[in-house]
Amino acid sequence: MSPKITTELLKQLRQVMKNPKYVQEPVQAYIVPSGDAHQSEYIAPCDCRRAFISGFDGSAGTAIVTEQHAAMWTDGRYFLQAAHQMDNNWTLMKMGLKDTPTQEDWLVSVLPEGSKVGVDPFIIPADQWKRMSKALRSAGHDLVPVKENLIDTIWTDCPQRPCKPLITLDLSYTGGSWRDKIVALRSKMAERKVLWFVVTALDEVAWLFNLRGSDVEYNPVFFAYAVIGMNTIRLFIDGDRMMDPAVREHLQLDSTLDPEFKIQVLPYGSILSELQAVGAGLSPKEKVWLSDKASYALTEAIPKAYRYLTPYTPICIAKAVKNVSETEGMRRAHIKDAVALCELFNWLEKEVPKGTVTEIIAADKAEEFRSQQKDFVELSFATISSTGPNGAIIHYKPVPETNRTLSVNEIYLLDSGAQYKDGTTDVTRTMHFGTPSAYEKECFTYVLKGHIAVSAAIFPNGTKGHLLDSFARSALWDCGLDYLHGTGHGVGSFLNVHEGPCGISYKTFADEPLEAGMIVSDEPGYYEDGSFGIRIENVVLVIPAETKYNFKNRGSLTFEPLTLVPIQTKMIDINLLTQKECNWVNDYHQKCREVIGAELERQGRHEALQWLMRETEPLLRVQ
Amino acid sequence: MSPKITTELLKQLRQVMKNPKYVQEPVQAYIVPSGDAHQSEYIAPCDCRRAFISGFDGSAGTAIVTEQHAAMWTDGRYFLQAAHQMDNNWTLMKMGLKDTPTQEDWLVSVLPEGSKVGVDPFIIPADQWKRMSKALRSAGHDLVPVKENLIDTIWTDCPQRPCKPLITLDLSYTGGSWRDKIVALRSKMAERKVLWFVVTALDEVAWLFNLRGSDVEYNPVFFAYAVIGMNTIRLFIDGDRMMDPAVREHLQLDSTLDPEFKIQVLPYGSILSELQAVGAGLSPKEKVWLSDKASYALTEAIPKAYRYLTPYTPICIAKAVKNVSETEGMRRAHIKDAVALCELFNWLEKEVPKGTVTEIIAADKAEEFRSQQKDFVELSFATISSTGPNGAIIHYKPVPETNRTLSVNEIYLLDSGAQYKDGTTDVTRTMHFGTPSAYEKECFTYVLKGHIAVSAAIFPNGTKGHLLDSFARSALWDCGLDYLHGTGHGVGSFLNVHEGPCGISYKTFADEPLEAGMIVSDEPGYYEDGSFGIRIENVVLVIPAETKYNFKNRGSLTFEPLTLVPIQTKMIDINLLTQKECNWVNDYHQKCREVIGAELERQGRHEALQWLMRETEPLLRVQ
Repeated sequence: MSPKITTELLKQLRQVMKNPKYVQEPVQAYIVPSGDAHQSEYIAPCDCRRAFISGFDGSAGTAIVTEQHAAMWTDGRYFLQAAHQMDNNWTLMKMGLKDTPTQEDWLVSVLPEGSKVGVDPFIIPADQWKRMSKALRSAGHDLVPVKENLIDTIWTDCPQRPCKPLITLDLSYTGGSWRDKIVALRSKMAERKVLWFVVTALDEVAWLFNLRGSDVEYNPVFFAYAVIGMNTIRLFIDGDRMMDPAVREHLQLDSTLDPEFKIQVLPYGSILSELQAVGAGLSPKEKVWLSDKASYALTEAIPKAYRYLTPYTPICIAKAVKNVSETEGMRRAHIKDAVALCELFNWLEKEVPKGTVTEIIAADKAEEFRSQQKDFVELSFATISSTGPNGAIIHYKPVPETNRTLSVNEIYLLDSGAQYKDGTTDVTRTMHFGTPSAYEKECFTYVLKGHIAVSAAIFPNGTKGHLLDSFARSALWDCGLDYLHGTGHGVGSFLNVHEGPCGISYKTFADEPLEAGMIVSDEPGYYEDGSFGIRIENVVLVIPAETKYNFKNRGSLTFEPLTLVPIQTKMIDINLLTQKECNWVNDYHQKCREVIGAELERQGRHEALQWLMRETEPLLRVQ
Repeated sequence: MSPKITTELLKQLRQVMKNPKYVQEPVQAYIVPSGDAHQSEYIAPCDCRRAFISGFDGSAGTAIVTEQHAAMWTDGRYFLQAAHQMDNNWTLMKMGLKDTPTQEDWLVSVLPEGSKVGVDPFIIPADQWKRMSKALRSAGHDLVPVKENLIDTIWTDCPQRPCKPLITLDLSYTGGSWRDKIVALRSKMAERKVLWFVVTALDEVAWLFNLRGSDVEYNPVFFAYAVIGMNTIRLFIDGDRMMDPAVREHLQLDSTLDPEFKIQVLPYGSILSELQAVGAGLSPKEKVWLSDKASYALTEAIPKAYRYLTPYTPICIAKAVKNVSETEGMRRAHIKDAVALCELFNWLEKEVPKGTVTEIIAADKAEEFRSQQKDFVELSFATISSTGPNGAIIHYKPVPETNRTLSVNEIYLLDSGAQYKDGTTDVTRTMHFGTPSAYEKECFTYVLKGHIAVSAAIFPNGTKGHLLDSFARSALWDCGLDYLHGTGHGVGSFLNVHEGPCGISYKTFADEPLEAGMIVSDEPGYYEDGSFGIRIENVVLVIPAETKYNFKNRGSLTFEPLTLVPIQTKMIDINLLTQKECNWVNDYHQKCREVIGAELERQGRHEALQWLMRETEPLLRVQ
């Protein structure tokens, strides 16, 4: 990797920072955050402005350019990558290290008195604006919104914003019509006494209207906003995709509907002016509901007294609780996904010893097998196919420079998933195609014990996921080991593979209580720098648990694995398992045999079926 | 309990709320919080203003009196008690119930437009002031500080503020001189670039100067403030106790010291004017460090730009990590405490079957045995001596109206502790003096499993206590049971039995990471309303743990029980214990035999020793 040469680009940016065509007054610093206007985790190429200006294309980072300096803040995952990708115009600010200044402190230290700091108000979330603005103001500077994105003004070959066709999902997939969802949303709005709700997250728009798109890789979403009133529905979306008869029919655009379900389609770019008009027309006590992570621009469109901000929107919370159709769809998707992985692992078992399979070949093969399954749409994230030391890089993605050949001497970690029209998958298996060492088996078994401890946990209704995180670590902790990531994240239903508002993590973020129907991942791991990585990940469904007693009638919950892919028994040191854990593994494998075995049979995949049967032989524990 | 008649008092209060002698302008509402000027958990009689005005004397509650209304907010622990103690001038506001308004919402609903709401600025913490002031202002009202406490103006027989003699603690108890502590504090101040530190919490003043008092029951503290500069020390304290030669010698008040260790003694009441003088004399960038829970009055004395507020002060954090002298003192205190409890339980075993022992008698007997021990000072909290259904009332304290006789048919729960000059104790044991039912044993055993899971947990250095809370609940959760309180709290060293900044709780409060030397309680429980209560509590010391591996060289921690009192094996259903848990109980009891047995022997308490030996017979698990 050679760094991107940015001297000329920075010169151009510094010019537009003073150009009255774009800024009312010159700005002495310009902030280039990672995100798009919807605070998406995955962004479209046209939104990769920070990568364009700096060369650094990791998933997290903020660039700040002043007249003299250019600095990039990123976290430990990306220190090496950022250092390689950026030229020496840039200073790398290593977040999490003690001596690294915050963006605010750094700005205060380098800016001349009374400076203006510019940022695109559509990209910066309102809560971040507030924090940064306050810090700058107290040091005598000003954070100012710059309407035109200054990177876009110098990005001559900026890709077009994608505008791909939409997929309509019928009731058999969604379990609820968009009209039902609007009714439920309006009832939440009435409860909170708000008159308007602004949908800013792409997956929330997609979920609400039972539509999917492909504007962003891996996430089946499309660029749009929506503003829902008590009697009106406005959808802000571009392109001729609204001309598609299937979409028009789905949204009933041409029917004479009850007026409160009539969808008014408006250009994507008109959201701000329309919202400003809503804001200007409010009477006292009329409120507009927005996520507190919505952009500063949209938040400001509503006068402060009329805003009702929450960390999670009612759509985010409703979307997290899957109904029967969604749950059944997720089950089907996971069965197909397991079939593909049985094929893959059977193939790897034969091919790896030949020394011809690289990480990239294995990842491609996984995609090939998945794409043979019904309703396959695309992958749900970039496949982490890693062997030996690469496995210890938690967010690894094989590229030609790092591509390693799988062998019978190294542990192989595959974290992959797909979007099917009926569901989203995300599974990690750690395999050895030769003979694992005693130490590798020991570590794998601790990770497995943690995986089981979460998966089999029984806990009261209303428990927050972060209270389960330590269960996943306890066996590792006992031996002085640990892993430096959370244990699980929410998973969408043919939507984003990472979604709120629930999860399982030691980080005290504001997670919502777990309830039956939510779907999360369970993925403890162990990573040894320079040697290997281990992770065991299932997607699990929150279900009611039967318990002997029922304290205060609260009811209990537990998890049901949706992922049904064998856990390699060769990697297990059975002496480290309790009888209960041993039974869990055997029951899990029995279920894999029954459910996935039947599907392999049905699909006529006999060799993979034999592999499945071999891999799911019961563990026998010497008493 | 008959309610307090408050008609006349409320009339008087409403008069002074309009009396220009006390208020610049009439206030339409007056808030009477629970606390004292130091945000203490336990308060002196002269500070029980809310109890005086309302009759309700529970530990938590806020009264608000308007011209028309009088309302009391308290939580679920006190609904019954408050209803009994207050006459019908008062409306009970049951906190935690859905329909109960917040104080702010209620005020807004009852006050005439543009009202003034008064409060004593010395009693309300700055963070609460801020929240309430903002809510009132946005509804057109004003929160105003009323300098003279209005309750005090009508409380004709208000007790004097206590001003009891001080105890000086030498190095053998404290392990560090007050000069050392000042040096360490100043170095923390230099790190944060602050010039002044204001000590407002009573236990922090006591700890800093190695002094103890008895102004507040159960807490060996005294009324004082301190203001520490880089070269000055000001102690604000009343009474002739500063005339005590031992105290003068201890504080070196009469020596010609280095000027930066010269303590200037000032009247308790002069803190505000002195702090205002400090505030007025600050130059730009000079900061004053205060707890964010300090009173509004003291916080306001420092102009906003000069304040440095943190949730935990450097003294709070330093105080939590006990040094070797403190740890050894805590060990000694717990040995003496265990001797007293062995005597008590031996006595109860003989006396309970006679039917003559009530909860109050048992509590008094516990105090009697404790008081026989060396360096006993007082109890560390009101003894919870509860049998049968009273055990299910988590914060029970026996009074004549509720006093129940112990019997061989009911579970007995004793949660008690003492202040010794060398340490503070807090221990709960749950006993049966007859034959417990299978269900009682089952529940007890789940609680025990939770207690052991925390006590034996191994976890990385820097882990926060809240990450351990679920370990204590897991066995209960498996059967659909739970308890509705946290698992542990920090414990002072001959100081407050509850102290920050660490603890073990599902509540996500800002706890500081655990480190070796910290001392917390481990006290899971199970409570069945109307039937029984079970709790098993040890005080445990955080110690380094030896582990097989050492991930990232972080090191690991675990707990060592300081409490060494037998856990009644009669209550254990051994079939529900794993071999590891069984071993834990046997090892624990072996240690009780060795350590407490030796001390009972030394003190010639042979009958109690025999009881100890009987109660610590090893559990034998059928394989």
